[in-house]
Amino acid sequence: MNIDIGNALGTTPGVTEATLERLDDRVIDAHEQISTGRQTDSHGYAALNLPERTDPEAIRQAVDRFADTEAIVTVGIGGSALGAATIARALGGSPESYFLDNVDPARIRRLLDRLPLEQTVIHAVSKSGTTAETLSNFLIVKQALTQQGIDWRDRTIVTTGSEGNLRQLADRHDLPALDVPSGVPGRYAVLSAVGLVPAALQGHDIEAILRGGSDIATGLTGSLFESPAYAYGAVSYALAQRGAQANAVVPYAESLETFAEWYAQLWAESLGKDGIGQTPIRALGATDQHSQLQLYRAGPRDKLVTMIRPRERPDVEIPETDLDGLSYLGGATLGELLDAEFDATEASLEAADRPSVRIEIDRVDERSLGRLLYGIEAACVLYGELANIETFTQPAVEWSKRAARGLLGGGEFSEAEQVADKTTLVVSDSSSQ
Amino acid sequence: MNIDIGNALGTTPGVTEATLERLDDRVIDAHEQISTGRQTDSHGYAALNLPERTDPEAIRQAVDRFADTEAIVTVGIGGSALGAATIARALGGSPESYFLDNVDPARIRRLLDRLPLEQTVIHAVSKSGTTAETLSNFLIVKQALTQQGIDWRDRTIVTTGSEGNLRQLADRHDLPALDVPSGVPGRYAVLSAVGLVPAALQGHDIEAILRGGSDIATGLTGSLFESPAYAYGAVSYALAQRGAQANAVVPYAESLETFAEWYAQLWAESLGKDGIGQTPIRALGATDQHSQLQLYRAGPRDKLVTMIRPRERPDVEIPETDLDGLSYLGGATLGELLDAEFDATEASLEAADRPSVRIEIDRVDERSLGRLLYGIEAACVLYGELANIETFTQPAVEWSKRAARGLLGGGEFSEAEQVADKTTLVVSDSSSQ
Repeated sequence: MNIDIGNALGTTPGVTEATLERLDDRVIDAHEQISTGRQTDSHGYAALNLPERTDPEAIRQAVDRFADTEAIVTVGIGGSALGAATIARALGGSPESYFLDNVDPARIRRLLDRLPLEQTVIHAVSKSGTTAETLSNFLIVKQALTQQGIDWRDRTIVTTGSEGNLRQLADRHDLPALDVPSGVPGRYAVLSAVGLVPAALQGHDIEAILRGGSDIATGLTGSLFESPAYAYGAVSYALAQRGAQANAVVPYAESLETFAEWYAQLWAESLGKDGIGQTPIRALGATDQHSQLQLYRAGPRDKLVTMIRPRERPDVEIPETDLDGLSYLGGATLGELLDAEFDATEASLEAADRPSVRIEIDRVDERSLGRLLYGIEAACVLYGELANIETFTQPAVEWSKRAARGLLGGGEFSEAEQVADKTTLVVSDSSSQ
Repeated sequence: MNIDIGNALGTTPGVTEATLERLDDRVIDAHEQISTGRQTDSHGYAALNLPERTDPEAIRQAVDRFADTEAIVTVGIGGSALGAATIARALGGSPESYFLDNVDPARIRRLLDRLPLEQTVIHAVSKSGTTAETLSNFLIVKQALTQQGIDWRDRTIVTTGSEGNLRQLADRHDLPALDVPSGVPGRYAVLSAVGLVPAALQGHDIEAILRGGSDIATGLTGSLFESPAYAYGAVSYALAQRGAQANAVVPYAESLETFAEWYAQLWAESLGKDGIGQTPIRALGATDQHSQLQLYRAGPRDKLVTMIRPRERPDVEIPETDLDGLSYLGGATLGELLDAEFDATEASLEAADRPSVRIEIDRVDERSLGRLLYGIEAACVLYGELANIETFTQPAVEWSKRAARGLLGGGEFSEAEQVADKTTLVVSDSSSQ
């Protein structure tokens, strides 16, 4: 993994090398904190030990019985789905991997209608084992299996914490069950069974994913000039301090589109608290040049653009053409076109005096993906240290969970009563009245 | 379409009813501008005449010959794809609709490998007829058809402007060809052939989509208190003036996920200029409560959250369960759970003193979708008038287009030379060297 922060130097907002050298003194301290947290396996910091702690053999054993599988459905939400979805989208492969990571009646019905359920593995993931969305979806899937005469216990694997409904279910029915590691917030759990089960079912080299994480872990020193993860975290922090309140994450590879979603959760839930936090904006290159670039180049000076690309990719040649003015495309490849657009967009931001950072991985394979995921996690943890916030909590999401539960009759919650008090000022079109 | 702006009153940032009444004087003037622009079919404003101008019969005639179709591939990028993709995702249906809206070698190869090309319609869309990404993809698709012994001319329909390569191609080979209406920027073209061809191929009621647009057009008066579109545009503008630099667009329906992308292009390219413009952030409910809500509730006070939902949807019951503490879910439906989460999230933003706006449509069908699309366009145009910017241009994206063309040997462009001058400061992990 390479990080090029050259285009954050001297832009507006921007940093100077002198700024970064001063900041590096704080990176040393932050690194001490992180190292201590890792050594004591403290809450959150424990996530950075996953490359060594996760047992790929246990995952392989748990999924071995599902060799005859045509589809995998991961039932989970937020951190229980995004890591696995990122890996599935990046590496592709078969059996096809699906995600029920929302509550949407139309979506679940369509998915259950089209899947060969007797050849489908259900991977139910919830750290608490009680997440309403996940358990609701799981109950519906379980019923669909039963209605087709399939024993759901033969098709289900569970990844969960040490207690809760999913753990009880696994114990009661002797389901294959893997652990959500303790001390690891969901959004940092990709390098555990939470993220790796579908990849293992697809026969991907999950050891190489973990090895990629170790590569970056080993290289975490106390200097941003030596570690690409820290360089990225420190520069993002420094730019946010100087006005880059938003961070547009733009992978130039469709296989990394879900990675941008994973990134957005990590960044938003870790750093968005105490009235501060850099807002992640997920995007996709080159497509979003035709959608968002106008704003990034000419809108408010409140953004960092993070551009990500693999240095190698499979390629497709553009056929020769006699169409007027298009002969320059013939003989080039789509990959060359995409790289030219990447370089051009980066330069166009520089020409407009706007900061960007370039992240390059070797290619979209297991090891590079492990590096990228771990690298961004370490960057986020460093940012949290520098910003002096509690990186590993997410207190602000509890309110609406209690309110929703109260609204559904799941107990007395004062939050539910406040829903009824909503101020309204409605404007309607007459046709819909 | 209903807009409830109640939760933007008195929040931080927020507006008061007195603010809105003052602002309404400016809405009257802006509406005059818009009306004049529509009457004279001026550049951009012409888009708001599409519900009356677009001829659905011409679209039906052009697609009639493709009755035996199993798949539709729209080749376009930005505004040439997002509108059609929004409709396709919202309404679903068959034949399946695909989009080559990026240059990505892995993506195009996988798509061409899996499609039954002899039963596939290619819809090539480019206003200029020369867009490098679109023409490159089209040349590759055309070659793939030819290699399989299929006459590409029998499988291709073109939507383009009055000149350019695609128009020449259509003229030379007598292809069915539809017009990108003149005076309509790509991002405002959804209610023309650009957005409607795939829907027509799927047998959707494109007349009803246009009628939905007309419903809103008819209701555009000079007051934000009478038109939901103007209410939304005016409140978004007023909140941006008071610090809501970002606008998170959160549909609570997976079928509207692409709508958020379409919205993001419309908002970013129209309003992101002259150093101002509200940054759209695309999201998805309820999933992103487990990803972004922490930031929206507890991060910087720089956001408006736009929550969108259909009032009716097909539903799925959650089975009864004896799992501890989950009995409250049994007998409820997924739709009720989703609605409870919507209400809870909205109330949780209010409780945290953060603004949100609620947009409700009747259901995700043709007419409601037409209303929603036209309503957001009208809101965006009003915002542009209030902000006094050139809503219908996108000058900042040209730089990188010229640079990319230069890099690929398509001519002499000074921008391409600047790419080589990029400042670099690279930090690598040792393992990747």
